[in-house]
Amino acid sequence: MSKKPLNIGLVGYGFMGRTHSNAYKRVGDFFDLPYAPVLKAVCGRTADGAKAFAANWGYESIETDWRKLIERKDIDAIDICTPNNTHAEIAIAAAAAGKMILCEKPLAMNLVEGHAMVDAVEKAGVANTVWYNYRRVPAVSLAKELIAAGRLGKVFHYRAQFLQDWTISADLPQGGTGLWRLDAAAAGSGVTGDLLAHCIDTALWLNGDIETVSAMTETFVKERKHSLTGKVEPVKIDDACAFLCRFENGSLGLFESTRYARGHKALYTFEVNGEKASLKWDLHDLHRLQYFDYADDSLIRGWKSIHVTDGDMPYMKHWWVPGLQIGYEHTFVHQVADFLTNTAKGAPTSPTFRDALATQAVCDAVLDSADHHKWEAVVPV
Amino acid sequence: MSKKPLNIGLVGYGFMGRTHSNAYKRVGDFFDLPYAPVLKAVCGRTADGAKAFAANWGYESIETDWRKLIERKDIDAIDICTPNNTHAEIAIAAAAAGKMILCEKPLAMNLVEGHAMVDAVEKAGVANTVWYNYRRVPAVSLAKELIAAGRLGKVFHYRAQFLQDWTISADLPQGGTGLWRLDAAAAGSGVTGDLLAHCIDTALWLNGDIETVSAMTETFVKERKHSLTGKVEPVKIDDACAFLCRFENGSLGLFESTRYARGHKALYTFEVNGEKASLKWDLHDLHRLQYFDYADDSLIRGWKSIHVTDGDMPYMKHWWVPGLQIGYEHTFVHQVADFLTNTAKGAPTSPTFRDALATQAVCDAVLDSADHHKWEAVVPV
Amino acid sequence: MSKKPLNIGLVGYGFMGRTHSNAYKRVGDFFDLPYAPVLKAVCGRTADGAKAFAANWGYESIETDWRKLIERKDIDAIDICTPNNTHAEIAIAAAAAGKMILCEKPLAMNLVEGHAMVDAVEKAGVANTVWYNYRRVPAVSLAKELIAAGRLGKVFHYRAQFLQDWTISADLPQGGTGLWRLDAAAAGSGVTGDLLAHCIDTALWLNGDIETVSAMTETFVKERKHSLTGKVEPVKIDDACAFLCRFENGSLGLFESTRYARGHKALYTFEVNGEKASLKWDLHDLHRLQYFDYADDSLIRGWKSIHVTDGDMPYMKHWWVPGLQIGYEHTFVHQVADFLTNTAKGAPTSPTFRDALATQAVCDAVLDSADHHKWEAVVPV
Amino acid sequence: MSKKPLNIGLVGYGFMGRTHSNAYKRVGDFFDLPYAPVLKAVCGRTADGAKAFAANWGYESIETDWRKLIERKDIDAIDICTPNNTHAEIAIAAAAAGKMILCEKPLAMNLVEGHAMVDAVEKAGVANTVWYNYRRVPAVSLAKELIAAGRLGKVFHYRAQFLQDWTISADLPQGGTGLWRLDAAAAGSGVTGDLLAHCIDTALWLNGDIETVSAMTETFVKERKHSLTGKVEPVKIDDACAFLCRFENGSLGLFESTRYARGHKALYTFEVNGEKASLKWDLHDLHRLQYFDYADDSLIRGWKSIHVTDGDMPYMKHWWVPGLQIGYEHTFVHQVADFLTNTAKGAPTSPTFRDALATQAVCDAVLDSADHHKWEAVVPV
Repeated sequence: MSKKPLNIGLVGYGFMGRTHSNAYKRVGDFFDLPYAPVLKAVCGRTADGAKAFAANWGYESIETDWRKLIERKDIDAIDICTPNNTHAEIAIAAAAAGKMILCEKPLAMNLVEGHAMVDAVEKAGVANTVWYNYRRVPAVSLAKELIAAGRLGKVFHYRAQFLQDWTISADLPQGGTGLWRLDAAAAGSGVTGDLLAHCIDTALWLNGDIETVSAMTETFVKERKHSLTGKVEPVKIDDACAFLCRFENGSLGLFESTRYARGHKALYTFEVNGEKASLKWDLHDLHRLQYFDYADDSLIRGWKSIHVTDGDMPYMKHWWVPGLQIGYEHTFVHQVADFLTNTAKGAPTSPTFRDALATQAVCDAVLDSADHHKWEAVVPV
Repeated sequence: MSKKPLNIGLVGYGFMGRTHSNAYKRVGDFFDLPYAPVLKAVCGRTADGAKAFAANWGYESIETDWRKLIERKDIDAIDICTPNNTHAEIAIAAAAAGKMILCEKPLAMNLVEGHAMVDAVEKAGVANTVWYNYRRVPAVSLAKELIAAGRLGKVFHYRAQFLQDWTISADLPQGGTGLWRLDAAAAGSGVTGDLLAHCIDTALWLNGDIETVSAMTETFVKERKHSLTGKVEPVKIDDACAFLCRFENGSLGLFESTRYARGHKALYTFEVNGEKASLKWDLHDLHRLQYFDYADDSLIRGWKSIHVTDGDMPYMKHWWVPGLQIGYEHTFVHQVADFLTNTAKGAPTSPTFRDALATQAVCDAVLDSADHHKWEAVVPV
Repeated sequence: MSKKPLNIGLVGYGFMGRTHSNAYKRVGDFFDLPYAPVLKAVCGRTADGAKAFAANWGYESIETDWRKLIERKDIDAIDICTPNNTHAEIAIAAAAAGKMILCEKPLAMNLVEGHAMVDAVEKAGVANTVWYNYRRVPAVSLAKELIAAGRLGKVFHYRAQFLQDWTISADLPQGGTGLWRLDAAAAGSGVTGDLLAHCIDTALWLNGDIETVSAMTETFVKERKHSLTGKVEPVKIDDACAFLCRFENGSLGLFESTRYARGHKALYTFEVNGEKASLKWDLHDLHRLQYFDYADDSLIRGWKSIHVTDGDMPYMKHWWVPGLQIGYEHTFVHQVADFLTNTAKGAPTSPTFRDALATQAVCDAVLDSADHHKWEAVVPV
Repeated sequence: MSKKPLNIGLVGYGFMGRTHSNAYKRVGDFFDLPYAPVLKAVCGRTADGAKAFAANWGYESIETDWRKLIERKDIDAIDICTPNNTHAEIAIAAAAAGKMILCEKPLAMNLVEGHAMVDAVEKAGVANTVWYNYRRVPAVSLAKELIAAGRLGKVFHYRAQFLQDWTISADLPQGGTGLWRLDAAAAGSGVTGDLLAHCIDTALWLNGDIETVSAMTETFVKERKHSLTGKVEPVKIDDACAFLCRFENGSLGLFESTRYARGHKALYTFEVNGEKASLKWDLHDLHRLQYFDYADDSLIRGWKSIHVTDGDMPYMKHWWVPGLQIGYEHTFVHQVADFLTNTAKGAPTSPTFRDALATQAVCDAVLDSADHHKWEAVVPV
């Protein structure tokens, strides 16, 4: 079968640039797809950095101005891996140029930007998706399947956490290469946009809309040295954020994220309690889903640890054999596979920009609530 | 060694009546104590019920009016195991009669009652304690030791949950024998006083005072048949309650309890994240403490599962040998052991009525916050 | 209901003397039984030791010669808690005196002694049982129920371990008070009789007879100081023992025990793999049973962790409420409860002396196999 | 940096053909290496199958006769992924042609074949390695580091299992495509060569030589239909194999593997108990290492669960960030990376053919012992 090439133009080549590049390169080995992604160009602020990345990953060319990349006729899709404060401008320009867009999360700095981005892609009619990659952990996709099949019944509780511990040291600088996540100007927020956004995206997908929130945030280390200027400056991001919420379906939600939870590297967890069954998952053992089924015979009722590696489980028939786990990077491969399959059919690939806008609305409400010390309604999008 | 008898008068003989009676009977076999508890009298509303309980456990006599019990000269200590709405009246009368008091938790229906109770015991100068028994799970006592020794350093996060699932069925009646916990008139609140109160007691003990809270409550099943009258009536208790809070030490807190978390029977959990170390515990495996120590060599750093069964761990030298676990009921034995030892020395036994008043203050603030949909300050006690 | 007193005469008052005494004292509080055990007399080699134990536990009298104890008319049952090399003599004399007998495990020093003991109790027609207490961990009893109900189908594999680490230090003395388990003259063997005997008893109960074995033993520390004489002497017990075996039902067995498994305090584990289901258990979390059911829907198939604390599970209706665990000592309470109930009906209480003889036969074959470096058949009993 | 191309000729394209191809394609993206592997040719028995595989993975050409592949001047390395009964012939021919050889495990059908293979590669002086891939799970490599650093001290016990359940159904056919592992003529043995060989390879690497073994094997399903002929024929492979052994360092070993352990998909586990520390690992959660350190303060001593995802742990700096796990396939990437690095320096890559010969010697002794029902010495190699 001859596959249609799909030329990728990658903007930004940090951690996410690596995960996306890997996904484009590998997807065809494991999935039978209508398109073959081609690593056409990578764009970075410095030619040297872009060249080194291109050499490592096999990009055919480089650019140092994303506007030029967008203008190129030989680019079909723009992949945005830059800091959050640049998403809107790049995405809107790319949409105007008729490019497909794969944008890193969070979608935008705020709801206003997000609306403009959604308008842009929808007006241009270009394929678009946001890299909330955890939807495509097989165990998380399985959770979605089980919920969609009605196995949980009415949901009472949803709770999620994203716990890290990498910024506890007061000696860690802020800003600069690899550290823009600590710089409010570039990141917009701290853990809210970086970590909670993942939790919220999954929650909306699994459990529907959130209506109201009551949040608190904290910045434990108040000042840090800037990595480039060496100047000690106030830290403006949230180091931790937690919120209560109510979902439209009547369930209660509890969310928390922090970079000060000693002992947890990247512990994203969620749990859903329904009338008939419950399930939970965590990123540190991402290949397992915990499931409790009240319908089980009472003598043998308990939480099951499902090793999500069998061929009848989401995405797994493409990989190895039962018992042999895949990892973090595969979630990006799955998203590319779905994007290429859907796009060929003219179907959207979740989460679209519009889906991600709903997450942005919750993030904005959370930050507002924390600022105002009161419950806030989430703006419907 | 001849031990001084200490005559117990037990009021109420439900689930807690059993756990306390067991504790009094067993404690002398395992602990060398200045007092020997004597099961002098049990008091219940019906003579038949009290007689059957007395026969089972070996109480020497019965009463059907707690006032008479309190008047008896041969009673040294009153143990209050009745529904929450009777604690204050009994305790105040017992204090006036100069009896020692061991009161089930929560202390009172509200802060006003609680203050009166504290005033009563402190004025009377009688030994008093409240049965927040989980402090004396060896693993929890060990957590206290580790924190008190400064091993965690500055604390950033405290979170606790108490999750049950026994009231999900809408067919479960409310009120009546064994079900007063679902009756707001008898219980005062639902999960807040029943379950969250335990979480709060432990938190205050381990992490200091709570200053402000933002809470939400929910009653999922709005009406239930009353078990005695058969009448369908509105459910007035909280089925679920969650709150955010800020501790005086600057750490953030997240608390949740519910009786609608399918799959969890009595899952009380807490976790504390400090700068240098973290720890967590859960009631379903109460003989273990999880501990993460950042000072460990980075190659072998990880969460440790400490099997709290060795002789150098709290209370454990009194029991069996390493590896052989004790259970739930032993927490009450430990509290009796401590109460007898402390009382002989004229020392208080934590949590005293005054300690429990602080928990009551947080519970009140939580319920107020949920009612008013806003942050509330906790009244200092 | 008036209960018939059953007068206990306890011989030996070490670790097991405590667990048994506790069981006799507590059983009536939790089980409705035809007999009320009475702590009539404890017998020890020194009057001081026996007196102290009697004072602690409430025994009415003491003896320093077990023969006198057996002669006493006011003793109904002899409980043997002495070192293994005395079981046979005491049991045979007790049977001759018409006493019921509750004997600590292992039954005997060897099969010859064991046969004589079985003959004695069966000829005398006295109630008898051996304290293989782990059969009455609720999770283990549940395993038995599930297997007996045919839920596993044909069994392919049985494996068990009993891992400890308390004798690793070469400085630990052998022999003497509390250390007779390291003295071959008193114990007969090392881990084989002490630990593997438990594993074998459970295995025969759950999976039927063992036909052939191939074993190896090792003594890692070759010489130790004797705790009483101070003399350095060769260590004659087995520090570790492992064996392969074939069961009569066609399944394969693998057993291992050691006191040199660093990190394991008393980790007794077993796992049974059947055609339709598998189960496993371990003593360090004794209130849980792991269960895998192949009949589950493939999407949610996994190992279940059953928290064995509900009222419909073995023995649990006598204790607390779901989620609240019991511990090690309760297994002895359960055995007393069953013994008293069965004995009143004239029914045997498993494991009887005859049941324990089968375990003895396997132990003997294991030690023979290790000595002779070859497969040995187990002598049918 | 210009990298030297290294042309790969792959023989066989089943499950292992996929894992190796993936490794060659990915390794350069994550490791900075002296060679760039080129997928030059794949050889299969049928042109159609080989073409389809080549198209999927990007092999430049195909062959249908491995002898022709070996003759090709443009092939630098032969990768043998064919059934076990063909390894020796292909490897010996490849060595004679001066090709580097990467051979799937087990090395050979037996020790005689294995010796011939070792002689061939050593005489030819060609780089060689055997794909015992589990050595390069980061957690397993970390175990090796910890042991090599003396952290465990004297070792007392080594135990390993490889448990599967995929052949329980009596309806599963034997032989033919994808099923040669059930055909004794092609596989040589059943679980011994397929699964135990992995356990033995790791054991020899971590704990040194095995001197003597006592084994048993079993074939639970005695006859199966052949997948190609449809004829019902006796099953000649071992469905299960277990053995006791003694290591040269004085420790005791216990090994077991089976395809009849219901509930276990591919559960390779090992545990090592040393005087000072113990460790254990399992393939179902391959990114974790369990570690117990007796030197820890007794109050906080316990088994640590090390999440092997940090940059200072073996191989992990090449992948993502702490907390984000890799999976099964990465072990092959690591082996290619090491092979290319070592080969450029003229250094061997463990396990070499000679290393794998030692595993073969143990496998042969195990099968002999099972046949003869007696202890066998392992032939030194």
